Amino acid sequence: MTPPLSHPAHPPGLPTVRLRPKAEARAIRHGFPWVYADELVTDRRTQGLRPGTLAVLEDADRRPLGLVTVNPASRIIARMLDRDPAAVVDQGWFAARLTRALALRERLYDAPFYRLVHAEADGLPGVVIDRFGDLAVIQPNAAWAEAHLDALVAALVAVTGVVRVVKNGTGRARGLEGLPEETLVLRGTVDGPVEVPMNGAIYLADVLGGQKTGLFYDQRPNHAFAARLARGARVLDVFAHVGGFGLAALAGGADSALAVDGSAAALALAERGAAAGGFADRFATRQGDAFATLETLATEGARFDLVICDPPAFAPAKPALEAGLRAYERVARLAAPLVAPGGYLVLCSCSHAADLTAFRNASARGIGRAGRRGQILHTGFAGPDHPVLPQLAESGYLKALFFRLDG
Amino acid sequence: MTPPLSHPAHPPGLPTVRLRPKAEARAIRHGFPWVYADELVTDRRTQGLRPGTLAVLEDADRRPLGLVTVNPASRIIARMLDRDPAAVVDQGWFAARLTRALALRERLYDAPFYRLVHAEADGLPGVVIDRFGDLAVIQPNAAWAEAHLDALVAALVAVTGVVRVVKNGTGRARGLEGLPEETLVLRGTVDGPVEVPMNGAIYLADVLGGQKTGLFYDQRPNHAFAARLARGARVLDVFAHVGGFGLAALAGGADSALAVDGSAAALALAERGAAAGGFADRFATRQGDAFATLETLATEGARFDLVICDPPAFAPAKPALEAGLRAYERVARLAAPLVAPGGYLVLCSCSHAADLTAFRNASARGIGRAGRRGQILHTGFAGPDHPVLPQLAESGYLKALFFRLDG
Repeated sequence: MTPPLSHPAHPPGLPTVRLRPKAEARAIRHGFPWVYADELVTDRRTQGLRPGTLAVLEDADRRPLGLVTVNPASRIIARMLDRDPAAVVDQGWFAARLTRALALRERLYDAPFYRLVHAEADGLPGVVIDRFGDLAVIQPNAAWAEAHLDALVAALVAVTGVVRVVKNGTGRARGLEGLPEETLVLRGTVDGPVEVPMNGAIYLADVLGGQKTGLFYDQRPNHAFAARLARGARVLDVFAHVGGFGLAALAGGADSALAVDGSAAALALAERGAAAGGFADRFATRQGDAFATLETLATEGARFDLVICDPPAFAPAKPALEAGLRAYERVARLAAPLVAPGGYLVLCSCSHAADLTAFRNASARGIGRAGRRGQILHTGFAGPDHPVLPQLAESGYLKALFFRLDG
Repeated sequence: MTPPLSHPAHPPGLPTVRLRPKAEARAIRHGFPWVYADELVTDRRTQGLRPGTLAVLEDADRRPLGLVTVNPASRIIARMLDRDPAAVVDQGWFAARLTRALALRERLYDAPFYRLVHAEADGLPGVVIDRFGDLAVIQPNAAWAEAHLDALVAALVAVTGVVRVVKNGTGRARGLEGLPEETLVLRGTVDGPVEVPMNGAIYLADVLGGQKTGLFYDQRPNHAFAARLARGARVLDVFAHVGGFGLAALAGGADSALAVDGSAAALALAERGAAAGGFADRFATRQGDAFATLETLATEGARFDLVICDPPAFAPAKPALEAGLRAYERVARLAAPLVAPGGYLVLCSCSHAADLTAFRNASARGIGRAGRRGQILHTGFAGPDHPVLPQLAESGYLKALFFRLDG
């Protein structure tokens, strides 16, 4: 836990920040990656550090604990970058982390379409990188990463061989870090949506104008599980985005899929994906508010063998929890009547604040209020290209519940 | 929620049992399948009912809630069999439930090897049925099921077409229900272990003398995930039983697998499975205590790219929780040093009492005490042929954590 003897205590010029006497250095030593503001000595010097400043973190006895990035404006005031306080964040440092991240994905996937870097768990706090073949989209959601972006991009190109790199600077977190919103093509050219093969379907990702990095890789195993239930089924995919569940279900042998979303642009991409996969004749879309459309479909007497609802985060943070759970319950209550007897209902939440138990209870309540009962077959989380640190595993945000409903 | 008008209030001759005035009839009405002893009026008549007696459950206002089975000796004094208080438990009743259970499994699996009935969630409290092709193993762990076994077996044969039926009466629960231990062949003949194809491997299930029903189907999706990590790997499978993880890893392209178990009989079946799958030259076994073997392997300097530990339930019930968590921590601490840098460690728990958070924390603590750090890639539960009721989902017993360890 002491720095290697061959290194100086820390690189000259780096500021130090120090834990308060009563703060838990043990958690940090055991791998917890964050320091909360009330655990750090926040003298005027520390408070004056610019967001993203690299610093050496010391315990109360001035023993170095590692290299951190500091943001005095954030509740998480410091994030661990390297257990070696003498580490130098340069292209080689990024290359080592990217190589380790790439080795995992190459073991898991046959084709280069995946989340390559998932922030803390891949050793790069605040950095998300999604790979689409020869193109990568970086979300540098932390000021330290923005400051070192050139080295990161150079390492990314060298390690993976991607020739096109997009910077997507639209993350909510960037505001907190004092960063502007901006989306730029940093390498190569991008002349339209990218085709992404996944679970036997083809998706179109708008890597410049779409939500997040253009596609949600996190649902891949849940798409695959839904596809196992889809043979011969009439499928309803609500909050469909670019067709995640619906196109996977068609690839799995569904008779038909109806995709509902508020975004005409997303549905247009879903239609292009359906055509690219050869499913156009079995695929339909309906643009509009999801809640209203669920009610309309019920009035029309529509029934489906497989209904999936994958809404945006209704409870992204604690203050929104109660209202968020009511919204999840409402989704379940409106969707359950559309499920044929013995059919399947898939309910998803990507809300950090709603844990699995709370989300499951809200979903079961909604199903019960619709007068239906059922079994839970499967509980799925984000795919393995979205690893988590054991110390932060409670915050696993994505949950998918697979219900089978009675007659 | 009132009984259909075309039925009498309940079949003549069935006793009634009644909720206490303050007991929660709402939970029952919303699908909760159990009544606890302190919620029921337990007069002398009710206390005198034989375990397994069928009765009509009423709320405090004498409105019928459904048909239940009663066991006055159990903390769960009544279990819901049918929401219709006039239901008659006969071969047709069992056939309806088995047909519903079969439809799900036929949708999920290409071959008839699965858990066909998983107790409460499949509408048959205390009954487990595993299917092995033309053979089924029934565990009637509740007295009501023992009393109606003939009708259940007749329905099973009629609905599924199995020609061989084994009754495995060794479950712990049977003692509580006043049932003897016994294993019988009820239909056809059984002349040795059964071959079970799963995840590209072949397993041998000893349906007469083995643990539980002879094979653990619940780990199937976790075997499959481990197999994705196994290409070219040296694999160590601890608490291997008949080779669950090890043989799946070999089917996934592992270079070698070493299976460790205390049971020579189980390892002999694992070896036969390896031979049947064509993996004999890549498969080895070591019989002995798992903890001692982990320590011996460390002394020998052995290293593996993928280590799996799937121990028996160390914390089957609340009183064993603390000791159980210490045992899980010890497994993690002894296994982590055997994992090569960048390799994978899979830790499993089938303990009801240890919830996911407690098990994950114990595992992470053990890994940390071994001086290792890692990411969690995946959290797996029992497969979808082990459905759960939403109201009982907290008790999902099986958890598998997939860690990747640093160098």
